[in-house]
Amino acid sequence: MKLWDKGISIDDKIEAFTVGNDRELDLKIAKYDLIASWAHARMLEKVGLLTTDELQQIEIGLNQLEVQIVEGTFNIGASYEDVHSKIEGYLIETLGETGKKIHTARSRNDQVLVALQLYYKDNLGLIKSQVKTLFETLIDLAQQHQGKVLPGYTHLQVAMPSSFGLWFSAYAESLIDDIYLINAAIKIVDQNPLGSAAGYGSSFPIDREFTTREMGFSTLKYNVVAAQMSRGKNERILASALGSLCGTLSKFAMDICLYMSQNFDFISFPDALTTGSSIMPHKKNPDVFELIRGKCNKIQALQTEMLLITTNLPSGYHRDFQLLKENMIQAIEDVKEVLEIFNYSIQQIRIKDVDLNDEKYQYLFTVDSINNLVVEGVPFREAYQVIAKQIQDGQYKSDMSKKHSHIGSIHNLGLKEIKAKFTKAIN
Amino acid sequence: MKLWDKGISIDDKIEAFTVGNDRELDLKIAKYDLIASWAHARMLEKVGLLTTDELQQIEIGLNQLEVQIVEGTFNIGASYEDVHSKIEGYLIETLGETGKKIHTARSRNDQVLVALQLYYKDNLGLIKSQVKTLFETLIDLAQQHQGKVLPGYTHLQVAMPSSFGLWFSAYAESLIDDIYLINAAIKIVDQNPLGSAAGYGSSFPIDREFTTREMGFSTLKYNVVAAQMSRGKNERILASALGSLCGTLSKFAMDICLYMSQNFDFISFPDALTTGSSIMPHKKNPDVFELIRGKCNKIQALQTEMLLITTNLPSGYHRDFQLLKENMIQAIEDVKEVLEIFNYSIQQIRIKDVDLNDEKYQYLFTVDSINNLVVEGVPFREAYQVIAKQIQDGQYKSDMSKKHSHIGSIHNLGLKEIKAKFTKAIN
Amino acid sequence: MKLWDKGISIDDKIEAFTVGNDRELDLKIAKYDLIASWAHARMLEKVGLLTTDELQQIEIGLNQLEVQIVEGTFNIGASYEDVHSKIEGYLIETLGETGKKIHTARSRNDQVLVALQLYYKDNLGLIKSQVKTLFETLIDLAQQHQGKVLPGYTHLQVAMPSSFGLWFSAYAESLIDDIYLINAAIKIVDQNPLGSAAGYGSSFPIDREFTTREMGFSTLKYNVVAAQMSRGKNERILASALGSLCGTLSKFAMDICLYMSQNFDFISFPDALTTGSSIMPHKKNPDVFELIRGKCNKIQALQTEMLLITTNLPSGYHRDFQLLKENMIQAIEDVKEVLEIFNYSIQQIRIKDVDLNDEKYQYLFTVDSINNLVVEGVPFREAYQVIAKQIQDGQYKSDMSKKHSHIGSIHNLGLKEIKAKFTKAIN
Amino acid sequence: MKLWDKGISIDDKIEAFTVGNDRELDLKIAKYDLIASWAHARMLEKVGLLTTDELQQIEIGLNQLEVQIVEGTFNIGASYEDVHSKIEGYLIETLGETGKKIHTARSRNDQVLVALQLYYKDNLGLIKSQVKTLFETLIDLAQQHQGKVLPGYTHLQVAMPSSFGLWFSAYAESLIDDIYLINAAIKIVDQNPLGSAAGYGSSFPIDREFTTREMGFSTLKYNVVAAQMSRGKNERILASALGSLCGTLSKFAMDICLYMSQNFDFISFPDALTTGSSIMPHKKNPDVFELIRGKCNKIQALQTEMLLITTNLPSGYHRDFQLLKENMIQAIEDVKEVLEIFNYSIQQIRIKDVDLNDEKYQYLFTVDSINNLVVEGVPFREAYQVIAKQIQDGQYKSDMSKKHSHIGSIHNLGLKEIKAKFTKAIN
Repeated sequence: MKLWDKGISIDDKIEAFTVGNDRELDLKIAKYDLIASWAHARMLEKVGLLTTDELQQIEIGLNQLEVQIVEGTFNIGASYEDVHSKIEGYLIETLGETGKKIHTARSRNDQVLVALQLYYKDNLGLIKSQVKTLFETLIDLAQQHQGKVLPGYTHLQVAMPSSFGLWFSAYAESLIDDIYLINAAIKIVDQNPLGSAAGYGSSFPIDREFTTREMGFSTLKYNVVAAQMSRGKNERILASALGSLCGTLSKFAMDICLYMSQNFDFISFPDALTTGSSIMPHKKNPDVFELIRGKCNKIQALQTEMLLITTNLPSGYHRDFQLLKENMIQAIEDVKEVLEIFNYSIQQIRIKDVDLNDEKYQYLFTVDSINNLVVEGVPFREAYQVIAKQIQDGQYKSDMSKKHSHIGSIHNLGLKEIKAKFTKAIN
Repeated sequence: MKLWDKGISIDDKIEAFTVGNDRELDLKIAKYDLIASWAHARMLEKVGLLTTDELQQIEIGLNQLEVQIVEGTFNIGASYEDVHSKIEGYLIETLGETGKKIHTARSRNDQVLVALQLYYKDNLGLIKSQVKTLFETLIDLAQQHQGKVLPGYTHLQVAMPSSFGLWFSAYAESLIDDIYLINAAIKIVDQNPLGSAAGYGSSFPIDREFTTREMGFSTLKYNVVAAQMSRGKNERILASALGSLCGTLSKFAMDICLYMSQNFDFISFPDALTTGSSIMPHKKNPDVFELIRGKCNKIQALQTEMLLITTNLPSGYHRDFQLLKENMIQAIEDVKEVLEIFNYSIQQIRIKDVDLNDEKYQYLFTVDSINNLVVEGVPFREAYQVIAKQIQDGQYKSDMSKKHSHIGSIHNLGLKEIKAKFTKAIN
Repeated sequence: MKLWDKGISIDDKIEAFTVGNDRELDLKIAKYDLIASWAHARMLEKVGLLTTDELQQIEIGLNQLEVQIVEGTFNIGASYEDVHSKIEGYLIETLGETGKKIHTARSRNDQVLVALQLYYKDNLGLIKSQVKTLFETLIDLAQQHQGKVLPGYTHLQVAMPSSFGLWFSAYAESLIDDIYLINAAIKIVDQNPLGSAAGYGSSFPIDREFTTREMGFSTLKYNVVAAQMSRGKNERILASALGSLCGTLSKFAMDICLYMSQNFDFISFPDALTTGSSIMPHKKNPDVFELIRGKCNKIQALQTEMLLITTNLPSGYHRDFQLLKENMIQAIEDVKEVLEIFNYSIQQIRIKDVDLNDEKYQYLFTVDSINNLVVEGVPFREAYQVIAKQIQDGQYKSDMSKKHSHIGSIHNLGLKEIKAKFTKAIN
Repeated sequence: MKLWDKGISIDDKIEAFTVGNDRELDLKIAKYDLIASWAHARMLEKVGLLTTDELQQIEIGLNQLEVQIVEGTFNIGASYEDVHSKIEGYLIETLGETGKKIHTARSRNDQVLVALQLYYKDNLGLIKSQVKTLFETLIDLAQQHQGKVLPGYTHLQVAMPSSFGLWFSAYAESLIDDIYLINAAIKIVDQNPLGSAAGYGSSFPIDREFTTREMGFSTLKYNVVAAQMSRGKNERILASALGSLCGTLSKFAMDICLYMSQNFDFISFPDALTTGSSIMPHKKNPDVFELIRGKCNKIQALQTEMLLITTNLPSGYHRDFQLLKENMIQAIEDVKEVLEIFNYSIQQIRIKDVDLNDEKYQYLFTVDSINNLVVEGVPFREAYQVIAKQIQDGQYKSDMSKKHSHIGSIHNLGLKEIKAKFTKAIN
């Protein structure tokens, strides 16, 4: 059944094309449509568009559907276009006349919008808590390995001393920036759009503050045209925010793949976390981290898709918006999986001892040598020239003994301060 | 002079290639490097790496450069690679030995980073105040034209009644979401990176909390590796945040261009805001809004550039990052110009009377007709079928009299609530 | 079974993550792996690495798998990672020792590469023939409606006379450019990569020219490292080429949606090709063309995904490349569906009569009026001023009588020349 | 002077915004507008819209402008919007009435279009010849270093033997694919759009085949609407084609930066091609290749900009298209510079000896060991298990003696075949 069926037969080919894979995708948002339908029905009763008895019937119907979802027996079936038609159709089938009243003062447009926003809000919350878990894992690793030196690179050239403590906690602190963006995204989807109907509101005296409270939104997207315009805009913003988090994870995964190379050989993982080759029996490849990197980069690309679907479309709903759902939902599910796998895997990292006496690391401490001269009173730029000459003449000798004391440096990681900043960000 | 000059001559061709257009671009960030150099020098004196006398000399030198910037006589010159070399070089030229001390405990990497972050923070603040001005203009226009009906479209098809009040205030409320993202971007760049040096900190006992306070940052990016990793990440985040704002403006501009078309004819602008054609003497084209749309779309594309430059690079500085500056700075300057022009132009909009009795708008009020039946007790889905049949049979008669009373609808725009939400967001 | 199984158990969670949805995706490329396996086996026999008897057994096994694919009973099953393991596994299960010889002198890397290239080449050929069908439809429509005037717009403003003939054949001719890019993409994937093994070739004396001929490739990607580097590069190039075609279709769909708007009202489609609204009973929305537009825009975004997955990865295989497959294959299947639906739907277009005497079209012919003056000897720029003054003074009178005679203009569409150009391009 | 000036004053602020930086950009295309103006004038004379005398005068005027361009004295000046207005304006100033006739039967739209296409075509030709030079350099390097072994990596893990010969010639052969795309792009811009005027042709009996021959185009874009639609489409296609070439160069640069790292240490460059650090006196950074990589990645992002500016705009000119020019022209100039610098620098590469007896390379030859067993009659999959067990038990011993004989492998690079393929592609 199509909500807009007016008795004219639609070509099958066209129907398949327009319905797309909504029936599968919508399973992810079914429970959120129920939440919105409940709130909408209660509101209709409050403003007198449903009787209390009708509301009770509808609530029973919605409860039955919820049970189906929980039990995994809910499915949309070929006779409905999407989850929204299905829910209205079920109420009509089971309740007759009363079921035909649920769509009063709403449109599928705002049904989709509100269900998606509830789904987004819920999942961004889950993602935040996964980021918290990963953050804590990284801080633990930083603490555990703070004494372990790691060569620091610039331009992929051996540069200055770093440490595993610095490395782990760098990614931990970077995650805080991603949390700021996720918080902004949550603020943006946490505005009730219900009541915008087809994008221009309703002539019924609906109570949008009531549904806002019922669904637990912090505020409304007041203007109904603004509410409708959130479609696409929400997705672009989510894609950017998740993209930023994925950027952090992708860079981390790149470091891991590089450090696992025999030419760096700074870290390893248990065999269970590596995979082999179909022809090279010696291979223990970092596929897990390569796939994390690749999936994260894919998600970083998502905002371009969202932009190209929506850019230059004038205001008002366009059917193109249906296509925003698929990869957005996929990305959210992927981010959750990536965070779980990352947190699971990184805990099993094995830190190797790096032999700093190896010839390739012989200039790792030149800046410390300059600093020694500066402390003796040589102006920095002159001290730089002195050490440069020693290097050119093959006279330079490394001094590995200096401690870095300032906050955020090798020997003073500032983990307490970073944790405090994270705690403030996450709440 | 190159800071890293060790007496080896560099091929001119290569030098031109590596220096690029830094000398011009850096004029935008010169004053921010001075702010950071001041803070750094004061900190060096505080921790005993400069004497009070040396600090005073350096401050005099920096003041001279500031005067040059204010007076427009500052230029980098062919003998320096960039503004950072120029500033150190000037201090060495004018102060001798003392000048050679300014680079103690810092690197060009963190100089660039801190100067850019100060520039970004400052400009995001300016952009926010411009958004505020535009928001207020739009709310005024919404108030002024709230009684004027505008056909509402879905799928570019005539759908339901809207109004100019709804249209203007929709874009006003949309801007609030963009402010949330700009706020997140500000939070992210408002973390002092100075002290990260080449990305691995310093063996000097520098006081990073002191420079944080001196430069007015809210907090530090504590971890020096995290600070260095902000390069590129900052730019991606800014590009996304500005991109979101530009998305709102671009959509608005598209509406304007469409509504100015003779086939819609809902609005016009004074001749001074339109441009002509080289062959068609009748043309009054909306070039201003087309260029706003195009420039905004260009800025929406910027994050892809930032991503492609940085993705899959392992941690640590890479020279590629130098290339992030050019289009980022250009985008910031463009956004400011676009906001000014938009605000200036939109105030001159002329609203036309739309003749709703025109045949093409005959079904604009069908939902209101359904709602009339619903109020009489007909279930919604049945009422829909009744009106659908009237339309098919050519019996449908429009009822334009209904008022929309719920918040955010045509006759109850909720401007007070929207303004309150904006005020909360902007502060 | 994993080809690289060395007896170490792999965590289930990790396995699910690394296998991804290869088992479903690979059904699309199963038949192409068989083609490549046949060619590889025949070559092994030719160079003496298989006996003739072994080859015959392997061919029987491959034939059995082919029958399964044709009959739809082929499936990969949970015990294999992907189609490549499945095929080798099946041969080992059914043939024992002989089956263990099929992987001699090849690697999964080049198996995937060659199967994908065969799939791409085949499908680009199909797409070309679909473009040909659409081209012919458009030329027919252009011929059929060449006399029908359509207002031409610049800046969305009424500009100069156009025609339906011009409009249809414009998109027809535009498709030729897309064919040039598809031809380039075909040339690029039509180079045999088999023999590159893991990306560095084989120490066996394999005969790559032989497999090239057997599989019908035009040439080889000779260098084995270059062959391996095609992974990702192929996909970026395909995404660009299909993106260009999709750009043409998307723009066409935008025109259609705009022209179907009541405010333009130039065209319509039968009810079977429009869809309705859940609340507005009068709606006949152009969803088919909106979805074409949206899907095409999504495909235009695909190259960014391909870029972000691959950019900055050094040479040599990386597991990230596995992720290129999913959306690439989906895009190819989508393009074929979009072309079919477009061609099916556009044939049902109904052209309306445009009333050029409507006031909004009063200046459609001003350039023709200037040209009349020019013919009388007035220099163009002066004639422009004369007509401009007439318009400003309200004295201008339209002359709709002029014929456009040059090639490619309203009254001389040049369809013969365009068809000749297309024929040359497609072959 | 604006061509469309009708005596109404335009606000300065708005004018600055709409003119943008056309005056500078247009210097790049000035000479191409002259070529098109010459052809147009000759055609006007041929069809009787100019007298022979008028043509001669106009040719003298155009010659004067050409001399100015050659001598570097040509500038557009503040009184003209762009190069097109300037040229018409100059002819009017110097020739009076006759100058006012040059714009007969053309529009600025097709002037811009034809000048850009001539510029694109010319520059793509230059780029092809630069690619040829680089190709030859790489083939020479491959020949020169074909005996030098290089470890081959997959997943950044030591995998199988490769060689410098293989590495250099891999990038050489990869360039052929890029040439295919550039050839397609040339075919696309090599179609004369002149005569499309504002996008809907002209009522004058212009001779478009004549101008096609005069300007050296291979064919026409016949349909005038198709010609106009090339704007934006050309740029997307060019951005893709140049992006593909840049993808090859960027990957090559990434390899170079990695191989220069002390942890790989496979290659080095003379000091003149490396740059230093402001604090680390030992640094010799590969900035040249990092900047090549970054610039190439920036150019790979360009197509997204082109897409976002144009997508979802209906047919007909929009002012947004003006914005396509800036970064497209910049990209073309950058590609030429990058190719020059790359070719110049790569010739100075120094190949180091890689010590394959180093422990980290101990498993580089395991596949060769398997192949030895296979030759002895052990089925491949069993031989794989045998060697795998040797590795696990620490019994494996490397055999470095095998020759790779098949085409495109280490000891049979197939340079002759690759050169033949390139020669066929470039012509």
